[in-house]
Amino acid sequence: MAEVSQMIDSDVFLAFSTYATIVVLKMLLMGPMTGYYRMTRKAFSNPEDTAIHGRNEEDKKKFLRTDPDVERVRRCHQNDLENIVPFVVIGLLYALSGPALSTALLHFRVFVGSRFLHTVAYLLPLPQPCRGVSWIVGLLSTFSMGYRLLSTSLVL
Amino acid sequence: MAEVSQMIDSDVFLAFSTYATIVVLKMLLMGPMTGYYRMTRKAFSNPEDTAIHGRNEEDKKKFLRTDPDVERVRRCHQNDLENIVPFVVIGLLYALSGPALSTALLHFRVFVGSRFLHTVAYLLPLPQPCRGVSWIVGLLSTFSMGYRLLSTSLVL
Amino acid sequence: MAEVSQMIDSDVFLAFSTYATIVVLKMLLMGPMTGYYRMTRKAFSNPEDTAIHGRNEEDKKKFLRTDPDVERVRRCHQNDLENIVPFVVIGLLYALSGPALSTALLHFRVFVGSRFLHTVAYLLPLPQPCRGVSWIVGLLSTFSMGYRLLSTSLVL
Repeated sequence: MAEVSQMIDSDVFLAFSTYATIVVLKMLLMGPMTGYYRMTRKAFSNPEDTAIHGRNEEDKKKFLRTDPDVERVRRCHQNDLENIVPFVVIGLLYALSGPALSTALLHFRVFVGSRFLHTVAYLLPLPQPCRGVSWIVGLLSTFSMGYRLLSTSLVL
Repeated sequence: MAEVSQMIDSDVFLAFSTYATIVVLKMLLMGPMTGYYRMTRKAFSNPEDTAIHGRNEEDKKKFLRTDPDVERVRRCHQNDLENIVPFVVIGLLYALSGPALSTALLHFRVFVGSRFLHTVAYLLPLPQPCRGVSWIVGLLSTFSMGYRLLSTSLVL
Repeated sequence: MAEVSQMIDSDVFLAFSTYATIVVLKMLLMGPMTGYYRMTRKAFSNPEDTAIHGRNEEDKKKFLRTDPDVERVRRCHQNDLENIVPFVVIGLLYALSGPALSTALLHFRVFVGSRFLHTVAYLLPLPQPCRGVSWIVGLLSTFSMGYRLLSTSLVL
């Protein structure tokens, strides 16, 4: 991990920057998608959110409920948080550790592709093991970068 | 995104550093706040947490429950995670991409302000659309930075 | 926070890189661990996940349930997200702000150690206040770095 400062101007860092932005924006879109499902399914968590949908108190209480579709989007969002955030952290440090551009691109593309597949597989939903496999492929990409990081620059 | 290494010593990066620290510390404080509500409302998730509040087994079981106030703080915390983490990632890369200081400051201030408003609107709670608007304003700030990033430095 | 670009080649940054990678990989492992508990306890969230365990529709519905052990791992994972992500963000900016190596190492080691203890205390589980103390120690380490950051480089 010598000359980290030179890596920050490298193609690897630019590539990381692009893929990280794309996959984080994709994760961020799960928020509005949850909102959309909550509005169309009329399933809310907060009493104050039901005001525009229900006129009287009875109506409002009715909309304070969980909906299977809303919960599915939320689980997908949570899985994104659990997997994309570690990718961003480890990917950033990995991009600064001087990997070959082709190896780095492979890791970034596999990860980002696997997460888009994961979302499609979760939301449609596709039959298993589509979602499981796309989740594991993403995990392996992050672990592979983490392994390289620790094997080249372990400083305890 | 040429000369990223020069951007790291810029005022934009310093400003990002400050605003990111403030908004992440604010997010981190939601943890102790959840703890405070759990103690005062006596609503716990883990059997071992009830030991200091209940003497006998019956008491302990009674405290293994959900409480509306605790759940509200937890939803607010979760929304912070879903929005502040993408802001930090995209804001960091954006700060390194050479934006004008005034534009960058506008993005950072709008985002951080919107998240403080969001927390106040969630916890009091204020009537909608206070919370909804503050959430969307924060989203737009992050998306605007992400758009600039992808339009200036797309490397696939 | 002058000469941030020099800090990126420093021992502090290398140390941060190592500890952040270790603690983020630890967090990432909570995902497969949740999967393991879901399989062995036969407790799933998605109908499509039950297909390999249940032959008929009745069996499948039976496995759509929550299990105390699965929920415990998930709460531990969530607590990791809520605490490790802020550590990574604030730790990165702190590592670039020019702290003494010994002070920085102390912060990183205390945090990483406290999170491993927290996971052990959560999953066994150990009696309280083991988990509470390890959580607070980690929090204090992150807040201490955040305090230094804001006191040395506040740019609003």
